[in-house]
Amino acid sequence: MEVYLDNNATTIVDPIVYEEMRPFFCEKYGNPNSLHRFGAGTHPKMMEALDYLYSGINASDDDDIIIVSNATESINTVIKGVWIDQILNGNKNHIITSEVEHPAVTATCKFLESQGVSVTYLPVNENGVLEAHTVKDFIRDDTALVSIMWANNETGKLFPIKEIGEICKEAGVLFHSDATQAIGKVPVDVQEANIDFMSFSAHKFHGPKGVGALYIKKGIKITPLLHGGEQMGGKRAGTVDVASMVGMGFAMKLAVENLEFEATEVKRLRDKLEAAILEIPETVVIGGKENRTPNTTLISIRGVEGESMLWDLNQNGVGASTGSACASEDLEANPVMNAFGSDSELAHTGVRFSLSRFNTEEQIDYAIDVIKKAVTRLRNISSSYAYAPSSHKCGL
Amino acid sequence: MEVYLDNNATTIVDPIVYEEMRPFFCEKYGNPNSLHRFGAGTHPKMMEALDYLYSGINASDDDDIIIVSNATESINTVIKGVWIDQILNGNKNHIITSEVEHPAVTATCKFLESQGVSVTYLPVNENGVLEAHTVKDFIRDDTALVSIMWANNETGKLFPIKEIGEICKEAGVLFHSDATQAIGKVPVDVQEANIDFMSFSAHKFHGPKGVGALYIKKGIKITPLLHGGEQMGGKRAGTVDVASMVGMGFAMKLAVENLEFEATEVKRLRDKLEAAILEIPETVVIGGKENRTPNTTLISIRGVEGESMLWDLNQNGVGASTGSACASEDLEANPVMNAFGSDSELAHTGVRFSLSRFNTEEQIDYAIDVIKKAVTRLRNISSSYAYAPSSHKCGL
Ligand SMILES: Cc1ncc(COP(=O)(O)O)c(C=O)c1O
Ligand SMILES: Cc1ncc(COP(=O)(O)O)c(C=O)c1O
Repeated sequence: MEVYLDNNATTIVDPIVYEEMRPFFCEKYGNPNSLHRFGAGTHPKMMEALDYLYSGINASDDDDIIIVSNATESINTVIKGVWIDQILNGNKNHIITSEVEHPAVTATCKFLESQGVSVTYLPVNENGVLEAHTVKDFIRDDTALVSIMWANNETGKLFPIKEIGEICKEAGVLFHSDATQAIGKVPVDVQEANIDFMSFSAHKFHGPKGVGALYIKKGIKITPLLHGGEQMGGKRAGTVDVASMVGMGFAMKLAVENLEFEATEVKRLRDKLEAAILEIPETVVIGGKENRTPNTTLISIRGVEGESMLWDLNQNGVGASTGSACASEDLEANPVMNAFGSDSELAHTGVRFSLSRFNTEEQIDYAIDVIKKAVTRLRNISSSYAYAPSSHKCGL
Repeated sequence: MEVYLDNNATTIVDPIVYEEMRPFFCEKYGNPNSLHRFGAGTHPKMMEALDYLYSGINASDDDDIIIVSNATESINTVIKGVWIDQILNGNKNHIITSEVEHPAVTATCKFLESQGVSVTYLPVNENGVLEAHTVKDFIRDDTALVSIMWANNETGKLFPIKEIGEICKEAGVLFHSDATQAIGKVPVDVQEANIDFMSFSAHKFHGPKGVGALYIKKGIKITPLLHGGEQMGGKRAGTVDVASMVGMGFAMKLAVENLEFEATEVKRLRDKLEAAILEIPETVVIGGKENRTPNTTLISIRGVEGESMLWDLNQNGVGASTGSACASEDLEANPVMNAFGSDSELAHTGVRFSLSRFNTEEQIDYAIDVIKKAVTRLRNISSSYAYAPSSHKCGL
């Protein structure tokens, strides 16, 4: 059996979404900006897709939703746009973010630091949550932007976006939220949360890869990251990828329709999987169980190195992750687990299981079996674990 | 009958390309950076696609080909990367480009001008061609980059890339070429032409929209436009869009295989269409017939406003353009026709027909018929043309 439990890395395209995209490759292939029927033929579905995107995040008609290539581009557009407009060409010089953002945010902020920008990386508490008051504590006169994720990709922990939005609004500071791990998992309402900018990628909620969105509240101007043609009202140049845009719209529609299912059924399966793993001695849910997206669990299994665990699971058809897919390649300690205050050995023992509405009970039962056997096998061959099963020096 | 003659705006996805992409939506949907089989399952086709891209432009194994979302992103990456590395953080302050580049280049250069960068826009001669020596004439000590397109999107005119490459090499200035309209139409060899950076979009050669490439010669470092995860060796972050990357690779394979067909059959049909239109009195090929891509003709039909012509053609199933798709929306005079020295009324009378290997003889015959009737009809209702058929004040 094959069981895909790495939905925070990317998801299967929902076959319904794929069906909506299909005509836009070899049939309705016109450029939507062209004046002829081949171009105009793409408009109805594009408009429908855009409607789903607007209603899916409760954007108002005057707000902008810019179609981009992924969350990373969306995030870079916001952070670098603010840099150009308010720092290079303005009198601000400070950005606030958290220690546990995705690399799309942190690497961009590191780049800005190399350009002389001051960046504050707020810590999270022992539950892996950013406390809203810390944002308030660190806002300065020259703060241009606060960028805080809606949900963490490793733990699924939800951050107090509404409170942070209020703090930013009061302080007159722009607020960006990376909602890549929130869309399709929990309700996302840009108006309720006082969001100025928001970023997400379609492939995290059963849309295609290679497309994402940037929400911009009405009236806010930002220098584009992609200059060129007049597409997206001049806010993001480049020939519009119709198939992907349509795919993202329909993926959003289905995501919203399935939010209840996510909060009940997907959560039930996640909880079942988690409970079964927690029956194994010396296992712990990183950040605890409260206030998470319903599909995610990041579990530390003492004495079992995350990468070895993944390898063993993979041999048996189960796909999981040690954290974000981009961190997987370099085998470094999971930065989120470091930030959460795990001791350094624990930081190498995390395995993230992330479910979706496409997982079945049968798959979860099978995965539980595979996981339990893997832990036994790996602990048996781990000399350090055998020597000191309950010490804190085991593991790596 | 429907006849699509706007292939410089975008193209149909070749059904063979689409078949290669298909499995990567709902079957092999893993993130290629993941460590499990769902990720690894994408690797063989991705590698194959990459091989086609490398051989298609004769890149050497040590060069980089970075997968991006389109030519616009590729171009912005080069120009803004050079800005950051050599201007903001270096001692250069000058960029050379031409007057007839695509907005992806000119709008980006205009932005740099707003940031204090000096930009030289080289004129083209009366044949719409940039003369290589002008590049040499304008290179300064502080020139950071020369950016010249390989083929013009409006006229199909080919620029002397090899000579410009040699000039840049000798002067020690980085050379970028926007080859978006060259790939699949004429042979493109980055080594022969001394290219440092090159940009293109898959959707111009029967690949999907939403994917493009940035070629970077070995050893050249450039600050990424998208910071984030470690994808593309840290040179372009964001989850890799496997389906699109595979699609672009196979589109390149087919494009190269069809170059001969393009140079013979597609050219024959373009020439047939062009000759038939030129039988109509007071028509002229903008920039002349020499040294063009084999699929393109930009024709001025005196007394017939381009937009009206498009409308009439569209009514009869023929899709064409007044120039680039992004210019179509705002009904402005075609900047390339202005640059070519057309008088201002002529600048509104251009219609671009751009063919592809998917056009048939039957389609061209039908289009010729439609075009001739449209010209008669539109000239009949054009009072200015009726009053002064051979004067230079007719038209708009
Ligand atoms: C010469 C040239 N460069 C760049 C582009 C931009 O391509 P894209 O819209 O795919 O980014 C185009 C497309 O119109 C083009 O013709
Ligand atoms: C929280 C978060 N932000 C941003 C991203 C980047 O998404 P993409 O790779 O689609 O640009 C991811 C994906 O891993 C993510 O989980």
